[in-house]
Amino acid sequence: MSDHVDTPVMPVPAFEPPYYAAVFTAVRTQDQSGFSETNERMEELVRAIPGYLGADFAQSPGGLGITVAYFRDGDALQRWRTDAEHRAAQRRGRAEWYESYTLHVARVERSHGFVRTEAPQGPAGG
Amino acid sequence: MSDHVDTPVMPVPAFEPPYYAAVFTAVRTQDQSGFSETNERMEELVRAIPGYLGADFAQSPGGLGITVAYFRDGDALQRWRTDAEHRAAQRRGRAEWYESYTLHVARVERSHGFVRTEAPQGPAGG
Repeated sequence: MSDHVDTPVMPVPAFEPPYYAAVFTAVRTQDQSGFSETNERMEELVRAIPGYLGADFAQSPGGLGITVAYFRDGDALQRWRTDAEHRAAQRRGRAEWYESYTLHVARVERSHGFVRTEAPQGPAGG
Repeated sequence: MSDHVDTPVMPVPAFEPPYYAAVFTAVRTQDQSGFSETNERMEELVRAIPGYLGADFAQSPGGLGITVAYFRDGDALQRWRTDAEHRAAQRRGRAEWYESYTLHVARVERSHGFVRTEAPQGPAGG
């Protein structure tokens, strides 16, 4: 309904529960040689998995990065988890790219979304 | 073992499952008047909830922000969900601060973490 051409980014929407979320929070090392290429390849691989629903990513400059990938069920997640190229990338990540990370694998029990459909309200003198 | 004084940030660690993760992904509006003060107050309130385990946050410049808050059990999450000040802040968020958001509430079934304990391996010639 609006013309927000300057805000194309949208979070992954809510799906009908249950589904799975893999929350990956990480701090990277200084040396990121090869990271971008591997990351692109991982995106290509995960998108090919039946039951992959999408992913959100945010990275604070100089700080934490968070990736949340969503999967329809445990089978889809298991396929991603056991993918040979993915496992090799994880090993390289621990050896080179990550100072620290945490992975939380979780079953989504409820979810909801909000999308603005009109201009934000504000005082006329704003 | 290292002297990374410039990388103090660490992700929230893995806890013993089960526990809960509330994944909040959002794109903000241009007008963020009052957001910082409210956000600080929300952090103060959530920290006071028994069973609150911590939160990770990342914000891509001009893009998506992701907050993941961790709770020991459904009771802790329910307390946060029904907090009156929190609910008022959510209403204000929809009216003023958010273009779009999604909330995924999930039960963590497994988790693990990694922390580098030695210098990254790399070729001597970099």
